[in-house]
Amino acid sequence: MDINYAQRVEALREVMRSRGWDAVLISGSDPHSSEYPAPRWKQVEWLSGFTGEAGDIVVTLDHAGLWTDTRYFIQAVQQLAGSGIALHKTRIPEQVLIPEWLSSVAFQGRNYVNIAVDGLCQSVTFIQEIKDAFDEDTEVRIVSVPDLLDCLWTDRPAIPATPIIKLSEAQAGESSEAKIEWLRSFLRSKGCDNMLLTALDEIAWLLNVRASDIDYNPLVISYLIVTPDEVRWFARESYDDVFLSLGDLQGSTYVDPSTLNYHIYNMMDAESRVCGPSPVPLRKAVKNATEIEGMRLAHFYDGIAMERFLYWLEKSVQSGQRITEWDACIEQSALRAEIDGFKGESFATISAYGPGAALPHYITPEQDAPVIEPHGLYLNDSGGQFIFGTTDITRTVPMGPCTYLEMQDYTLVLRGHINLARSIFPKGTAGCQLDAVARSPLWQAKRNFGHGTGHGIGYFLGVHEGPQDIRQNFNRQPLLPGMIVSDEPGLYREGQHGVRHESVLLCRESGSNEFGDWLEWENLTLCHIDTGAIIRNLMTEEEINWLNAYNAKVYDSLKDHLPAEVAQWLQEKTRPI
Amino acid sequence: MDINYAQRVEALREVMRSRGWDAVLISGSDPHSSEYPAPRWKQVEWLSGFTGEAGDIVVTLDHAGLWTDTRYFIQAVQQLAGSGIALHKTRIPEQVLIPEWLSSVAFQGRNYVNIAVDGLCQSVTFIQEIKDAFDEDTEVRIVSVPDLLDCLWTDRPAIPATPIIKLSEAQAGESSEAKIEWLRSFLRSKGCDNMLLTALDEIAWLLNVRASDIDYNPLVISYLIVTPDEVRWFARESYDDVFLSLGDLQGSTYVDPSTLNYHIYNMMDAESRVCGPSPVPLRKAVKNATEIEGMRLAHFYDGIAMERFLYWLEKSVQSGQRITEWDACIEQSALRAEIDGFKGESFATISAYGPGAALPHYITPEQDAPVIEPHGLYLNDSGGQFIFGTTDITRTVPMGPCTYLEMQDYTLVLRGHINLARSIFPKGTAGCQLDAVARSPLWQAKRNFGHGTGHGIGYFLGVHEGPQDIRQNFNRQPLLPGMIVSDEPGLYREGQHGVRHESVLLCRESGSNEFGDWLEWENLTLCHIDTGAIIRNLMTEEEINWLNAYNAKVYDSLKDHLPAEVAQWLQEKTRPI
Repeated sequence: MDINYAQRVEALREVMRSRGWDAVLISGSDPHSSEYPAPRWKQVEWLSGFTGEAGDIVVTLDHAGLWTDTRYFIQAVQQLAGSGIALHKTRIPEQVLIPEWLSSVAFQGRNYVNIAVDGLCQSVTFIQEIKDAFDEDTEVRIVSVPDLLDCLWTDRPAIPATPIIKLSEAQAGESSEAKIEWLRSFLRSKGCDNMLLTALDEIAWLLNVRASDIDYNPLVISYLIVTPDEVRWFARESYDDVFLSLGDLQGSTYVDPSTLNYHIYNMMDAESRVCGPSPVPLRKAVKNATEIEGMRLAHFYDGIAMERFLYWLEKSVQSGQRITEWDACIEQSALRAEIDGFKGESFATISAYGPGAALPHYITPEQDAPVIEPHGLYLNDSGGQFIFGTTDITRTVPMGPCTYLEMQDYTLVLRGHINLARSIFPKGTAGCQLDAVARSPLWQAKRNFGHGTGHGIGYFLGVHEGPQDIRQNFNRQPLLPGMIVSDEPGLYREGQHGVRHESVLLCRESGSNEFGDWLEWENLTLCHIDTGAIIRNLMTEEEINWLNAYNAKVYDSLKDHLPAEVAQWLQEKTRPI
Repeated sequence: MDINYAQRVEALREVMRSRGWDAVLISGSDPHSSEYPAPRWKQVEWLSGFTGEAGDIVVTLDHAGLWTDTRYFIQAVQQLAGSGIALHKTRIPEQVLIPEWLSSVAFQGRNYVNIAVDGLCQSVTFIQEIKDAFDEDTEVRIVSVPDLLDCLWTDRPAIPATPIIKLSEAQAGESSEAKIEWLRSFLRSKGCDNMLLTALDEIAWLLNVRASDIDYNPLVISYLIVTPDEVRWFARESYDDVFLSLGDLQGSTYVDPSTLNYHIYNMMDAESRVCGPSPVPLRKAVKNATEIEGMRLAHFYDGIAMERFLYWLEKSVQSGQRITEWDACIEQSALRAEIDGFKGESFATISAYGPGAALPHYITPEQDAPVIEPHGLYLNDSGGQFIFGTTDITRTVPMGPCTYLEMQDYTLVLRGHINLARSIFPKGTAGCQLDAVARSPLWQAKRNFGHGTGHGIGYFLGVHEGPQDIRQNFNRQPLLPGMIVSDEPGLYREGQHGVRHESVLLCRESGSNEFGDWLEWENLTLCHIDTGAIIRNLMTEEEINWLNAYNAKVYDSLKDHLPAEVAQWLQEKTRPI
């Protein structure tokens, strides 16, 4: 039975009328500013049916709108049909964002506006932007109602409570006690007594705990307060006790407003609240020796599963079997699941053939998935969570004959991938100052891709993490030895094909000389790059040498750990060009 | 007769004692925040003997110090000898900058400090930094004394007043009236009535006027006030009238605090003063069609002079003549001066052989200049001011046999130069996002250079101009069609040799496609790149093709305009490799 979203919006308006609210704001986030929220916090989906990863809703008494970006326009139009909710497009030149829309369209000229929000799921900064959008002639009252939709959403999922995994000091490379002591010394340097942590990956790292509360993210939904002599962890039945505990605190409390939610921010005593960036993300991003060793191991086992998968795929498709994109997902998951320590995938696998691969955020359909044909390009972007690390890999492989354009795109993207992977750069370089080396082979052919080249990767944590990245932004964070990033340039031609080559790189020292201190990358990913779709004369000798050496390393590392027929096939696949 | 700088410092202390000043600050700038001040404002040099381009002095009753950066340490030690002025090093990790030095070293614990400055030569922001450095227990009084040293510097040079050149609309491509109207519409959009302009290149551009008030910079030392119905220009005898005129203004006045001096800032009524970035630098940086045509012409004539110079140099040195670095300067100046419309050099020529070229800011000595020998590398960085444009070029040429290291450095720098010159990039790209393409061939060999890759260049204006640049910073200014920048990677080995290859590039449209709008460079510079020091197998085919095509273009463009023997020589020099 189809859900009547228009009815849900109308029911919300009933509540609004009874409470005197002019507008309600529903966000797609959770109380922890998580990139991916648990089902309990999929309030946007419950109200509108929209399942995109980025979207916010505003309901007024005579309008309902969803704000989302270019990636989700087509999906939003389909999913909002019949809901009465209008699509407001963002990341386009003529965009009117929510704060501006509220002040200049919905409530222009009003001298009083009552806006209700689920303050738990709104960031401090976003609410401030709304207030700032109105001029002083309008009094803006923000009503923060935790779990605002609860009165309507009667079958709302509970807060997840999956089994908690405690990593030993040997597994994490550093005890939680040592990490807490480091945090306390940071707080002392800031003249602060306590810290409230709400970002789930920061808490997981500090306490050396993991769970599966959120799909693909091995996190425990919880809050953490560190005082000079206590560590108060609010998880499971004590989750809500954080609100009481905040009242108990002696002295000043440090919080990071970029992840803290509006509700808690306002509960805190402004006098004792000290705002600043959390020091945890940077320290977490610089992996210790145990984490590095674990990541190497994870990529070794992941490589075995990948090679077995690619062997199976090529043989099956070329022998005329009917394999869909979804069948490939199933086979690949099964192979990864055989690995000891496997804890699930690190994100939803993108298994895409032909035109599907042209959508960088393609979702492989379970039903009626496209069949993989014995020609053209197949793209697979997937990864695993292991107790000893996290992986993320994309391989694009020719399933048979390819067009010249497919091969050209394949080769140019590969050149960018190689350029970054083999780059040496001075200490102090930020990712945005290095990004062009991956893009320039594409730029020279007037081609480009609309996503970042690289993101940080956690250690049995989120597959996306900061503070570093490699993209066309102005992020000043230097790349540091011990940081791990993806290297994933791509190219997408709507309705035709997509190419992406992704490996995971570890930043490491590369010596010093009269010109400075140098950094380079260790390529953690162990899975061959198919040479069948390469146009050799588009590549430089240096790039070809790098590719041949990489493929040889993959074969040498994996050959003794693969079934004989796969090893033999891989030997063929990794023959130098 | 040697000047006794210690005596000058002591005389200043006499003044300080009589006025009750605890400290005097002397800066190296002028009232217009000029990069290069006229002799009248070389107050640092007058007081200390130090001639470096960056330096500030603080004198207290018991200390005198000069603050300057790494580039000038050796020079400062030599020039300060006997003056009693201590060197305070900046741009080193343990630096203590002036504000911190005043608050934590000189006047720590004091409850009252009287600091005298020549407010005309201090920026608003720097004075604010000094005030901020002290905690609230210290009352800091800033005494702004225009021309503070005048009582001691009795033979101080006058304000320069060179002949004023008025560019016609045909010469400038846009009338001053149209520019003023554009500025007024900017002011209306900001809700402002007037604007005070103090930066000399902004005034020169707005009024289409030039002069030679500052070495190498064709500027008129002046102030400008634009009101809704008047253009008040304060130059020559009316220069000081600006102070009176400020009192006259009706309504609000827009100023740019990044160039405005502290004295004028404080004279203005705070109520009617509106601070913000000037819109002139960006519009000035985007050259109009006339300016572009003029720049092409300037580089054509400059190329003829350069080729005649390089021919003369090679023939003279290889025939055994004794040619010093200074002789080369003289010959080159004479050849440029033959060009109709030549108005002087655009900066002090760097004519450097061998180890001299290893100093990026080498000053060729007039006396006892090193002799250019028939082996190794000679570097020449020079440029001209012409009534129709400004040039800036560096060529490094082998004077005979070179070492392998010289050739390797020569080739790697050239690769970086070519990579930038041939780069295509999407509209919206900032220089800092492109810089890596010029550095990466050097980085791959663990070599680097400590200066920017490129700077903006004016149209018969300063050889350095913003707001764009190409360097490892986080300058968000996108590169725009019509902007002109230098492309000048280098490599410097102390005591051995230096390499720099510099041409001037015009940013232009390169079409649009499904991946976006594209930009590329037109190479304005017309002077061959010597192939004699190239190690061919270090370069890619694409780079070699670019080089051969560039050299062929230079020959084709210039051959009919050179003396026969130079044309014949150039044909040899530009033979494809």
